[in-house]
Amino acid sequence: MVEQGNAKLSAIRAEMASRDLECFVCFHMDAHNSEYIAPCDERIAYISGFDGSNGIVVVTKDDARMWTDGRYYLSAEKQLEEGWKMMKWEATEQTWFAFVDAQVEKGQKVGIDFTQYPAKSMKTRTEFFKKKDIEVVSVPNLVDLVWGAERPVRSEGKVQLLAKEYTGQDTLDKYETVAKKLDGSVDALLVTTLDDIAWLLNLRGNDIEYNPVFFSYLIFYPGKEDKKHSVTLYISAGKVSDLKDYLESVNVTVVPYEQIAEDLVNFAESDLKIGADVDQLNAELHRHIKDVIVEKSSIVETIKAAKNTTEQAGMRACNVRDCAAIMKYFAFLEEELKKPDHGLDEYSGAMKMNHLRSLDPLNRGPSFESISSIGANAAIIHYAPPKEGAEKLNNDEIYLLDSGGQYLDGTTDITRTAHFSGSKAPTAFQKEAYTRVLLGVLDLERIVWPSTSAISGADMDILARRHLWAVGLDFKHGTGHGVGSYLNVHEGPQNISRYNKVKLVEGHCVSDEPGYYKDGEFGIRIENVIMV
Amino acid sequence: MVEQGNAKLSAIRAEMASRDLECFVCFHMDAHNSEYIAPCDERIAYISGFDGSNGIVVVTKDDARMWTDGRYYLSAEKQLEEGWKMMKWEATEQTWFAFVDAQVEKGQKVGIDFTQYPAKSMKTRTEFFKKKDIEVVSVPNLVDLVWGAERPVRSEGKVQLLAKEYTGQDTLDKYETVAKKLDGSVDALLVTTLDDIAWLLNLRGNDIEYNPVFFSYLIFYPGKEDKKHSVTLYISAGKVSDLKDYLESVNVTVVPYEQIAEDLVNFAESDLKIGADVDQLNAELHRHIKDVIVEKSSIVETIKAAKNTTEQAGMRACNVRDCAAIMKYFAFLEEELKKPDHGLDEYSGAMKMNHLRSLDPLNRGPSFESISSIGANAAIIHYAPPKEGAEKLNNDEIYLLDSGGQYLDGTTDITRTAHFSGSKAPTAFQKEAYTRVLLGVLDLERIVWPSTSAISGADMDILARRHLWAVGLDFKHGTGHGVGSYLNVHEGPQNISRYNKVKLVEGHCVSDEPGYYKDGEFGIRIENVIMV
Repeated sequence: MVEQGNAKLSAIRAEMASRDLECFVCFHMDAHNSEYIAPCDERIAYISGFDGSNGIVVVTKDDARMWTDGRYYLSAEKQLEEGWKMMKWEATEQTWFAFVDAQVEKGQKVGIDFTQYPAKSMKTRTEFFKKKDIEVVSVPNLVDLVWGAERPVRSEGKVQLLAKEYTGQDTLDKYETVAKKLDGSVDALLVTTLDDIAWLLNLRGNDIEYNPVFFSYLIFYPGKEDKKHSVTLYISAGKVSDLKDYLESVNVTVVPYEQIAEDLVNFAESDLKIGADVDQLNAELHRHIKDVIVEKSSIVETIKAAKNTTEQAGMRACNVRDCAAIMKYFAFLEEELKKPDHGLDEYSGAMKMNHLRSLDPLNRGPSFESISSIGANAAIIHYAPPKEGAEKLNNDEIYLLDSGGQYLDGTTDITRTAHFSGSKAPTAFQKEAYTRVLLGVLDLERIVWPSTSAISGADMDILARRHLWAVGLDFKHGTGHGVGSYLNVHEGPQNISRYNKVKLVEGHCVSDEPGYYKDGEFGIRIENVIMV
Repeated sequence: MVEQGNAKLSAIRAEMASRDLECFVCFHMDAHNSEYIAPCDERIAYISGFDGSNGIVVVTKDDARMWTDGRYYLSAEKQLEEGWKMMKWEATEQTWFAFVDAQVEKGQKVGIDFTQYPAKSMKTRTEFFKKKDIEVVSVPNLVDLVWGAERPVRSEGKVQLLAKEYTGQDTLDKYETVAKKLDGSVDALLVTTLDDIAWLLNLRGNDIEYNPVFFSYLIFYPGKEDKKHSVTLYISAGKVSDLKDYLESVNVTVVPYEQIAEDLVNFAESDLKIGADVDQLNAELHRHIKDVIVEKSSIVETIKAAKNTTEQAGMRACNVRDCAAIMKYFAFLEEELKKPDHGLDEYSGAMKMNHLRSLDPLNRGPSFESISSIGANAAIIHYAPPKEGAEKLNNDEIYLLDSGGQYLDGTTDITRTAHFSGSKAPTAFQKEAYTRVLLGVLDLERIVWPSTSAISGADMDILARRHLWAVGLDFKHGTGHGVGSYLNVHEGPQNISRYNKVKLVEGHCVSDEPGYYKDGEFGIRIENVIMV
């Protein structure tokens, strides 16, 4: 591994030299601003050895650094190959851009694969470097060039049609809703976020683990006087070869995934106006249309977030079935942990849970990597048990399971915390903390408000926290995130936190997940998905 | 009255003509952006006959309009003299500036007394007219010119020193706190809000009913290397003639009230920087220093709002005594209303309450005009009982009393709602509404939060409303306002509403006053002042 690590860095540096780059920066990101990424986009894992979900790498002529956060310090130190140094992503530490600024002299160039950065953030970053007289240039991803034939191919998995009994709304109707919202303000709307595309076309895929999405871009044309809405879908043709009739029926023209850039160049040369969300659109595509773009934030995302009545019923139904599976698992644990030789650990427990879920005929796998943690590990908010070396489960400590499933009729995300009172019972403090967390869950899930008031997550965050605050406790994470309908377990635009001012409307689903964490001792979290 | 009304308007129009004005606009406002104004500033009452607390008048060559809000429609219609037309200040009605725009042609002039409008708001307004090619010019208040010798003189009442047992902090210490906050950013700070001046100098006055303030402007000089802080106080000399030694001891130079404008002109011609709050500073004074001003928002207001430990103790003590007086009043009512010939009405009840309060040796009068209302009148949120024609009190309907006192050790504002169950008992709905209002009061007053979090009124407004929301009820006013310490009953910058993001800190006092109002039937409000 050591020579290979060096060889890879040398190859990157050769690519940098041929482009006159002083520095190359690469992110843990795909071209669609996805939270989870596919194997072909795991460039940081390939080039540095570090396989965590948060990383930024900077390679200079004689240095290579990788930034990540506190969850990954230990594993990054172990995994990083020779020639790499880990950097802490913390308020008091040097940022990657400050590092670049310190390494690069005026007039020199920094290369970035612009598809890895949303346009709006790139603007901020580019302006920072411009002030320093450092030029940021868009380059192909140099990691891909080094990776070469070894790079996993982009999934050719088939896209599936999701039946109306689950979506509740025909695609042509969804076009109408989007067109109404655009209200003639643009000639076309570019959609680049994978879950928005999947929702609009009533299609699902398998290209990213946990997220039933498929790689594609989409341009929606609201039509002129004829009001006939149509779509151009940029996707590998083989993925939708079984869906020709359906796609034709919903006015979709299929063109190759890679053609998006060329088409946007043509768009920019026309007199037409194109809408796009610059918080999501990658900076590379943005370059082509920056003169003709009309900023349209969260158009599809906002419509998608308010679940229709079919989706609402589906969310309820899948949550009931999911809870039944969880109860089976906890009942199983209760019996199993009494056996001295049970052999269950955090990882195998999570696998057992996924198995119980998979018995449901509508289940399509887990919706995220389970957090299955015992004792002090439960205090680590984003803990994921390793396959090798997970802690053995026991009935003397608090056990926390945060897991969820993808079902044809919805997406779940549930956390339960239990203590099986073996030789030890939970302490009075643990019981009090649990009770106060539960009071927060209940207060938040029972809130009712006037539909005439624009009430947001910011207005109600206090309900989940006040019972903890009353005795000087709190939790250092958001109270709740939006949840998709057989889509991503995290979606916007609404959430429950002091900072989210998006008006909550009927059909919005959010998680309700206060907690309490005592470092080095135990962790408590209780989570339900609740619906407006 | 009719001829006089006409004569007054004719006189105003003559003044307009001599200044080539197409239109003159006058506000219910003084030069200090005060909520309550003195008799000499009641220009709208003089010129139009309407004596409500919210009014804007526009006089053109052949028209005269007066805008007010829903509280005053009935009384305004009665009071307005000949030649005047009442306009409704509502979202769907024509605004005064839209009216002016419709009346005045391009290139013509609109006259406004700039002392009646805060600088920041005037900027917005002037820009509106500029777009329409209408010139807004600063003129002396034309009403004053017509009013002439009949205009009440500005109060010459003596200013009093407030003892340290009530203020808790010497003026020289307060200077130090202000200077620290300015941190060398300006050479001087202009303070124009009357309660801020009173607080800083530990002085109180009697120039405005209910508010123990005195007309003045103040410039604070933080000093240079010598760190000797000093103040120039612009005030009528006779008002502070008894305080010469004190003022000298706190480095105050007294100069005439009117000299402020001239001094600011001189300031503008120097190289010095002066700080001021453009939300408060009137537009006339702002004109003189607009090139040298540094915007400093709420410097004194913010320090003043966090009561020191002496003020905190005073607020607690005066609230206890005030509550005792209120309990005496309600006990008195309970007995009195049983008598068929009791003769008590809403107005005489309020007077009785003020009398009971005045028996406290530290009482210095009411802190605002009492809202004393029975039955359907209690549903009118800002109802003030008229001296003549107030409703007779009874023990068959809900009675609401919202009143407060000024005390040397603090300011109170308390609302109690009672039903004395004479021949009728309160209905089940009234009892439920009362209970839900009370639950909101209690939830809000008991909230505890981590001092490390920047928690504001916006975060907790929901606590006062959620028990009402749960059954489809709500109230259409803010939940709580800041309260002064033997100062104005309304003060900032903090309050309890969904829109106030000012961080709540120790010593902040706010009212906690949810309510429920059933139009035409009854009103409920329960109010305590609570302290962080």
